[in-house]
Amino acid sequence: MHGLRVELGDRSYPVLVGREILGDPTAWSSLMTAPQVLVVTNEVVSPLWLEPALAGLGDRQVATLTLPDGERYKTLETLSVVFDTLAEHGFHRDAAILALGGGVVGDLAGFAAACWQRGVDVFQAPTTLLAQVDASVGGKTAVNHPAGKNLIGAFHQPRAVVADVATLATLPDREFRAGLGEVIKYGLGLDAQLFDWLESRLELLVDRDPQVLERAVFWCCSLKAEVVAGDEREAGRRALLNLGHTFGHAIEAATEFSEWLHGEAVGAGLVMACRLAAADGAMSGEDADRVEAMVRAAGLPVAPPPVGSARLRSLMGMDKKVSGGRLRLVVPDGIGSCRVRDDVPGRLLDAVLAEADRDG
Amino acid sequence: MHGLRVELGDRSYPVLVGREILGDPTAWSSLMTAPQVLVVTNEVVSPLWLEPALAGLGDRQVATLTLPDGERYKTLETLSVVFDTLAEHGFHRDAAILALGGGVVGDLAGFAAACWQRGVDVFQAPTTLLAQVDASVGGKTAVNHPAGKNLIGAFHQPRAVVADVATLATLPDREFRAGLGEVIKYGLGLDAQLFDWLESRLELLVDRDPQVLERAVFWCCSLKAEVVAGDEREAGRRALLNLGHTFGHAIEAATEFSEWLHGEAVGAGLVMACRLAAADGAMSGEDADRVEAMVRAAGLPVAPPPVGSARLRSLMGMDKKVSGGRLRLVVPDGIGSCRVRDDVPGRLLDAVLAEADRDG
Repeated sequence: MHGLRVELGDRSYPVLVGREILGDPTAWSSLMTAPQVLVVTNEVVSPLWLEPALAGLGDRQVATLTLPDGERYKTLETLSVVFDTLAEHGFHRDAAILALGGGVVGDLAGFAAACWQRGVDVFQAPTTLLAQVDASVGGKTAVNHPAGKNLIGAFHQPRAVVADVATLATLPDREFRAGLGEVIKYGLGLDAQLFDWLESRLELLVDRDPQVLERAVFWCCSLKAEVVAGDEREAGRRALLNLGHTFGHAIEAATEFSEWLHGEAVGAGLVMACRLAAADGAMSGEDADRVEAMVRAAGLPVAPPPVGSARLRSLMGMDKKVSGGRLRLVVPDGIGSCRVRDDVPGRLLDAVLAEADRDG
Repeated sequence: MHGLRVELGDRSYPVLVGREILGDPTAWSSLMTAPQVLVVTNEVVSPLWLEPALAGLGDRQVATLTLPDGERYKTLETLSVVFDTLAEHGFHRDAAILALGGGVVGDLAGFAAACWQRGVDVFQAPTTLLAQVDASVGGKTAVNHPAGKNLIGAFHQPRAVVADVATLATLPDREFRAGLGEVIKYGLGLDAQLFDWLESRLELLVDRDPQVLERAVFWCCSLKAEVVAGDEREAGRRALLNLGHTFGHAIEAATEFSEWLHGEAVGAGLVMACRLAAADGAMSGEDADRVEAMVRAAGLPVAPPPVGSARLRSLMGMDKKVSGGRLRLVVPDGIGSCRVRDDVPGRLLDAVLAEADRDG
């Protein structure tokens, strides 16, 4: 087991990464003092991982809420069901919520915890690769609005994150590969050493070798913890974590958030961000090729779906990451480094989108 | 015009108290840089005060949402309407919300601002006495749940509070008097000088003398600002602002939040808290009599409705202010001072409730 700490003053918290730690009562007893816990999970995760989680929680007043599975339930309506459950059990200010599941469960349960009685503790026990390396750390919580994803939410840091890589063994292949999109993002955007390490271990990673998985998840969490500690509310450096996401978001929106998984869209988005960087001279074509090869080897798409470059361009402008009317994009400076830019020439962006459209 | 500052580091903000300042563009232009503003108000306030507010906001993209009036609309459903309106106008992260109305509008619009895109600016322009002296300052925002008031919310400090006492001229008499319950609370709980001043000016205050009103609102806001600056999240001293509120909450709940106004329940709650203090020896009977006389002179009830002391007792235990199963009560130590106590003998509380029941 590896442990690290997200340093945020009196809101600092530990992130534990290990194998078969979810059901370990000694781990939980040191992390959680709450006498009452609501476990929020979904119908897919529940039969697989609820029992170990309950064993880990030991002797407390524990209630469970099992939600339907899927991004389309990440709504105010489902949030309201969480509140009803908390009320029904008479859970007070000293109650806690345990989010057991992927990003949807974590975002929704975390937001419920942010709001219930103006804030109760939340513990994140992510069971997908995407949630383990990204969503569970950093305190971003939200639900979707018909007008856009994550439009309604809060910054609410968890009290602890328990990332058990054993849970990744039961993940469907497509979802596992989608998580690799975010893993590659950390290497490309923040850490050339991680990128090199991933290049040399990608086959083992795709085969879900437990030791390699544990190392990869811990490495990504360490990078995320460092970024979040320096910029909790995304006033600066934290925006770098959106590398590939403005492209990715447009892809998800163009396919109505139902065909592409988030990590798949991020995978293609990373390749497009690299092509843009190469066209701008910020990155070599060879490095862009390395990134594309890795995304491909991870089993992820390297180009957008055939929706037309004009449609993607217009959807990019509707993303949350628009400030003062100017499109802000995270663009690599080479492997292991990236920057937020609002000076990318529109014609370069259009050219990259048009080329990707031909490739797709 | 008087101005003060709530000192909360990078979340510090000004509170302006004055006459006819709502429609003053020079005041607003220095306070608000947002290019897009959603004014949230209600159907009662709108015909009276929306026009001056819009004049004050000057040249921006301004949209208005007029909600139905009343506590029963302070729900997740209404919150959802605010989100829909923000989405419909394409309001981004640099948009702001202006809450124009009483506590319900302020709590709901403030909570919407806390959640929209994980937090946009909110400006409070309170138009009731209760909201001017209490709800608008301090960043508590919330909506109600069928299981209880303010169970779903956030701490989200406003960027500025503009309390225009001119708006109090149009307040129905009963609502104005209810606000005096909170004014008296500040004197009784925190400031003997204020209490003495109120005793000598009560008639002018009840007659809504503008100068006396401005001074009273400013005094209360100053006290609240000091308390909030020292304890934003109610870990300690801020709980003193709940003086009279645990009794008051039980009264409101016993009458299904439809018969008594919040400030009326607080008025009776203050008297009951004093009777408890007197029974416990923490306060003299003479001082308790002074408080009762002031509450009575403000036109507020001094005893609970005839619902039975057992019912009140049981409802007090269901209030949010229960920690670890023990009932915590704010009890005066005399005029101008109070303390949070969890050691009040149950038999004293029962005796005070039984006596109040006979008086009521």
